[in-house]
Amino acid sequence: MIMIFAPDGIGEVGADAALAQMIITAVRADQGGPLRDGDILVVTSKIISKAEGRSAPAAEREAMITAEAVSTVAQRGPLRIVRTRTGLVQAAAGVDNSNVSAELILLLPADADASAARLRAELQALTGLRLGVIISDTAGRAWRMGQTDHAIGASGVRVIERYAGRTDAYGNPLLVTEMALADELAAAADLVKGKLAGRPVAVVRGRSDLLTDEPETATDLVRDAGSDFFRYGSREAVLVALLAATGQAERFEALAGLSDDELAAAVLERCDPADATLVERILRSA
Amino acid sequence: MIMIFAPDGIGEVGADAALAQMIITAVRADQGGPLRDGDILVVTSKIISKAEGRSAPAAEREAMITAEAVSTVAQRGPLRIVRTRTGLVQAAAGVDNSNVSAELILLLPADADASAARLRAELQALTGLRLGVIISDTAGRAWRMGQTDHAIGASGVRVIERYAGRTDAYGNPLLVTEMALADELAAAADLVKGKLAGRPVAVVRGRSDLLTDEPETATDLVRDAGSDFFRYGSREAVLVALLAATGQAERFEALAGLSDDELAAAVLERCDPADATLVERILRSA
Repeated sequence: MIMIFAPDGIGEVGADAALAQMIITAVRADQGGPLRDGDILVVTSKIISKAEGRSAPAAEREAMITAEAVSTVAQRGPLRIVRTRTGLVQAAAGVDNSNVSAELILLLPADADASAARLRAELQALTGLRLGVIISDTAGRAWRMGQTDHAIGASGVRVIERYAGRTDAYGNPLLVTEMALADELAAAADLVKGKLAGRPVAVVRGRSDLLTDEPETATDLVRDAGSDFFRYGSREAVLVALLAATGQAERFEALAGLSDDELAAAVLERCDPADATLVERILRSA
Repeated sequence: MIMIFAPDGIGEVGADAALAQMIITAVRADQGGPLRDGDILVVTSKIISKAEGRSAPAAEREAMITAEAVSTVAQRGPLRIVRTRTGLVQAAAGVDNSNVSAELILLLPADADASAARLRAELQALTGLRLGVIISDTAGRAWRMGQTDHAIGASGVRVIERYAGRTDAYGNPLLVTEMALADELAAAADLVKGKLAGRPVAVVRGRSDLLTDEPETATDLVRDAGSDFFRYGSREAVLVALLAATGQAERFEALAGLSDDELAAAVLERCDPADATLVERILRSA
């Protein structure tokens, strides 16, 4: 049995806030509190970003997205899905203007695993308890509507449960099953935190078996782009291959945001005229 | 606060099993039991498939995957990620041989939303309670390692929470936030069910506000393929565009499983010889 609760009263988090103490106090005042040995805390990345001063003026939004992004994954007009420096695939690189004052935007924590490790160390030092920390963010998915919360930082928690080598009750080996536990913990926590109630922290109680001193991190959940079948959106995959085949691979980032007509014109500009008809047909089929 | 527990003692589920009664009995014997008004039951699709007789001989695995699949999304050798008749994107169309005897495979429920509605009606009739039912399955994701449980069937539960039109505490409108609650409920339930413990049903207690009589279903969570940026794997997207541009679009399903060399040979076979060099270069860049 697990119990999940999200205390009220964390309040506004400023730069350099004493987040660990704020969380301990808020949990203590909750009916589920105080913290117990083996609890896993799921902390919304937004308050980590605030405590770490990861904000910027709202007017710099596009520049910040570009700075946070390593590569474009898919783009349609103003919507840019990118791979971030830490490997996350996120719309707008996770740059967001919700739950922050209107003139500011928030960036994701620079290294959410390190943030989780620091917060865990502080929480454990202040309480004397063995705890786990997950930092969660909200993201869209391929193939499915809506968003879910998943783990972008973790410390002291097993992030993946590997069943390889284990057999079910029928003796069948479970070859491919690897459950992304940290993502499931983050998703579960969202069910009590919500997005509007001012409850950015949840406590998951009842899976103390998931606590670990192994150096597992949420980065373990990031699939290497090189082995990812879905490294690019379908249209972008065609563009990447076409640019590579026509000797203009380096133009991908510059061209990815263009409309269909602009894109065809830009790509054809540097193609062998003999290839123009086929190149245009392929682009129109993408 | 929510509480999630997974009762022991559901036992082996045969074809035409009285699943509702089995669940009620098992929950009653659990420390979290009996069922209460507002509980949401998350039921692993496997036992629904068993109760509905959705099994086949293990030797028919490939034929069954083909029968369940509407289109290939990505394929590398024996690994086939397909879109199923119900719109799910799933490795091997969800055809699985775990937690079933070695000579059998299980297919996903034919219509998991209908299965959820039937089970909910039975559970409510037997208990007199207002309940929700989600049918969960385990699936991989783009961009992230590991699998999570998500919802493939739902009845009586709000599957998506739409924040559009609502504002946060700072007055910012939450334009794009739509949380896939049913997927988060399924993920949360996996944290207590696991894959090996013989606990295929979890009860989520504490979110009775999510119960609804609106006709929401897990199919609402399926993104329409036509609007999906990630409709195909990157390699498959290139192949689709190339085949369309060279007048052989209908060959995609037949060619998707070929190795790089076989694929180049097969595509070039029907291309204008003048295009051969570019076509091969594009395929090699995919």
